[in-house]
Amino acid sequence: MQVQSQQQAAEPRHWRAYHYGEYQVVFRLLGGIFLVANLIEPRTLKGFRDYPPELMMPRERMLEKARKVFRSYGFAPIDTPALEYTEILLGKGGEESDRLIYRFKDHGDRDVALRFDLTVPFARFAAQYIGQLGTPFKRYAMGPVWRGENTSAGRYREFWQCDFDTIGTQSNAADIEIVLVIHDLMFELGLERFRIRLNNRLLLNGLLTSLGLGDRAVPLLRSLDKLEKIGSEGVKAEMIQPFPRHAGITPEQADQVLALASITGSNAEILDRIERDFATQPQTMEGVRRLRELLAVAEHCGITEDRLRLDLSICRGLDYYTGTIYETTLLDLPKIGSVCSGGRYDNLAGLYTKQSLPGVGASLGLDRLIAALEELNLLEKMGTPASVLIANFWDQALPQYFAFAQQLRRAGIGVEVYPETKKLKAQLQYALHKGFPLMIIAGEDECRAQTVTVKNLKTQTQQTIAQPELVAVVQKELHA
Amino acid sequence: MQVQSQQQAAEPRHWRAYHYGEYQVVFRLLGGIFLVANLIEPRTLKGFRDYPPELMMPRERMLEKARKVFRSYGFAPIDTPALEYTEILLGKGGEESDRLIYRFKDHGDRDVALRFDLTVPFARFAAQYIGQLGTPFKRYAMGPVWRGENTSAGRYREFWQCDFDTIGTQSNAADIEIVLVIHDLMFELGLERFRIRLNNRLLLNGLLTSLGLGDRAVPLLRSLDKLEKIGSEGVKAEMIQPFPRHAGITPEQADQVLALASITGSNAEILDRIERDFATQPQTMEGVRRLRELLAVAEHCGITEDRLRLDLSICRGLDYYTGTIYETTLLDLPKIGSVCSGGRYDNLAGLYTKQSLPGVGASLGLDRLIAALEELNLLEKMGTPASVLIANFWDQALPQYFAFAQQLRRAGIGVEVYPETKKLKAQLQYALHKGFPLMIIAGEDECRAQTVTVKNLKTQTQQTIAQPELVAVVQKELHA
Repeated sequence: MQVQSQQQAAEPRHWRAYHYGEYQVVFRLLGGIFLVANLIEPRTLKGFRDYPPELMMPRERMLEKARKVFRSYGFAPIDTPALEYTEILLGKGGEESDRLIYRFKDHGDRDVALRFDLTVPFARFAAQYIGQLGTPFKRYAMGPVWRGENTSAGRYREFWQCDFDTIGTQSNAADIEIVLVIHDLMFELGLERFRIRLNNRLLLNGLLTSLGLGDRAVPLLRSLDKLEKIGSEGVKAEMIQPFPRHAGITPEQADQVLALASITGSNAEILDRIERDFATQPQTMEGVRRLRELLAVAEHCGITEDRLRLDLSICRGLDYYTGTIYETTLLDLPKIGSVCSGGRYDNLAGLYTKQSLPGVGASLGLDRLIAALEELNLLEKMGTPASVLIANFWDQALPQYFAFAQQLRRAGIGVEVYPETKKLKAQLQYALHKGFPLMIIAGEDECRAQTVTVKNLKTQTQQTIAQPELVAVVQKELHA
Repeated sequence: MQVQSQQQAAEPRHWRAYHYGEYQVVFRLLGGIFLVANLIEPRTLKGFRDYPPELMMPRERMLEKARKVFRSYGFAPIDTPALEYTEILLGKGGEESDRLIYRFKDHGDRDVALRFDLTVPFARFAAQYIGQLGTPFKRYAMGPVWRGENTSAGRYREFWQCDFDTIGTQSNAADIEIVLVIHDLMFELGLERFRIRLNNRLLLNGLLTSLGLGDRAVPLLRSLDKLEKIGSEGVKAEMIQPFPRHAGITPEQADQVLALASITGSNAEILDRIERDFATQPQTMEGVRRLRELLAVAEHCGITEDRLRLDLSICRGLDYYTGTIYETTLLDLPKIGSVCSGGRYDNLAGLYTKQSLPGVGASLGLDRLIAALEELNLLEKMGTPASVLIANFWDQALPQYFAFAQQLRRAGIGVEVYPETKKLKAQLQYALHKGFPLMIIAGEDECRAQTVTVKNLKTQTQQTIAQPELVAVVQKELHA
């Protein structure tokens, strides 16, 4: 039995190797410890994360789609520095936010901080340049922001924001446009089952004034904003807590507010009812007028009522908003909350300039959207942006491989040439690992016969074709 | 004379108003001072700058074009955090770089810093994930980096970098691909008058070894790298300065090195001459072999010799490079230096892992390219990404204006609806200020007649057309 005799013959050598090997192991261990001790452990900071291709490709695609929509409405991109004077970001008395932001002294002993959102730097930017820019000014901005606060699941200290705003006009046309932009964004992102929910702070404040609660509007709306989170009983319980931290109203008044917030019906029914019951309150009627105009234009542009709904219960918590309010919910994932929200405000840059800059805008929730696309299986997880891998079998064929790649690229198809002449199995594994849908194989035989094999890794089929047919066949396979 | 009598009649009122006005002025001044004293001055940090639309639109367009090219070769995007442990960025003994970087203690008392380039974070990233990613791994990265060093004209403390690399392979195919990528990048950016200059450190080191100067390669190449800046006399003067700060060679040896670096001729002539004179030096011959293969593939892919030239005088100053070296010069602007440079290196991530990660890559000089495009008048300075401004004259026509806009957007044309019903002059000024090529005018008369006027602001011509012709006419005007 040949196997056994080989084993027997090998035994002494094996034994010798073992003893010699023991020293080797010790040397290797020592060497390894020495090396490891000198290496720096590769790791990210707590609360930060890397974006490998699988995460970065969807983010890039999403930003591209958003840019396309913003530009189609004439919003222009701007960018501001990551670092600003702390005074700019926090205002002069902003010490209490200190722990929330990354703040430090730079080499010139300046008190500086990393931006924590894109709104404050935009306000500083607008105050500085509005004279040159002119009004109305429409901008979008996309970029990372940083918060030093404690991290929790899914919340990072560095994340991207994506804002768009029109400033320098009080015209309702700007408010209307925000709805059209959100609508186009959702379609462009392939999320057509959505609902934009609308409200108007003028209308809300007017209604509260009619109830004799105009002076409690700020805490009332802050409580009402929690309706979906804590329910009407929870909101009521909060509203009757003492003023000024809460609204400090009676349970009966709280019921009245909640009754108004829960008026339902079609958009027209809601507005008709308010107009009937509160016709004498000028703020309310201005809110109704602006909402009616918005809805009429949206309808004229083909936005159906199932995608655009008045909802008197949404109000956004921030005191900042003064007019139209927007929230956007995905019908298949209502739990993730609003993926695009915003509203109208009276004055963007009051901290930095006397010039009043009213505006309206919204923010696209990139991280929520990526999570949503993932949950809805709309995210193609790929490790490469290219569709075709050209296998590399014969080093003399390298010019040929690169020429194939060039032909395909000119037809708009992304192509990678495997850089080393390895066995088919290794190259196939690489293709499957990265998620290439197609692989092109041309060894010495194919090259001499002027043919090429196109292998579809999804359908596990392959065909050998004449080289001039390559582009047409690849296009057909990719679109099949 | 009516004018005079009005003046006379107005005098007393005017006088009263003047006196009352004096107080007003004083109050306003006081109020203004009070307000100004409470305002925060809107300003950026020293060495930082904002990107208004005029600068941001070209940057976005350039990054889009670069992304398109990278993806077509299968380079995948990655991103890493702006903040890292200082140890990761500087290594364990990196104190001397301290003043160059933004470094501080975070809330958890960690020693952290803002990244100063994209290479070091990529090395950390690669060390951390290469097992999952697999090799070869091709990535691009684009993003801001920060340096605390003193600023000078045109140099900022925050600037963007754009890198692409293939790691995990020593194959020359990866080196060849870098040339093809640079070629495609320059074409995509509309800069077709360029020259990629090539060299190889193997060849350079081999030649120096043949001259008996192999042990002086590092300071010699560092001096040689300054050839274009300080000329051959300057380089020679530096080469003869004492070792180890400089090469410490004799003037005759310096002449020999400079003679080699100044060998000219066609690519084939240079390689033939080296092969003839130095056939026995193995490093030199490996360099020649790799360059020959690169040039053959490039030629096969249609890259002409005027765009790809061997140049024995380029070597990049960094010790880091070990093989192919790339520089890219614009023929019309040679003075701005290389706009895309890089090379092959033996080990990317030796600080963080024992696994050897050889690679090859290059970096696109975004700021230099934007400056170049500006100087070559290839930069369209616009304040808006949209091509059409729809004027707004009649508030009842708002649904119509938005419907026009929607039709044009569906045809891929960017459109802005002016948000307020202002006089034509104001809207025209806005259009000219922003650089819209076309303006669409539909007042009450046009709307009732179902017509619309298309005004070309470049040719100063206009035509009134039937509304259904709008998209076709706008397309024609834009492409004229």
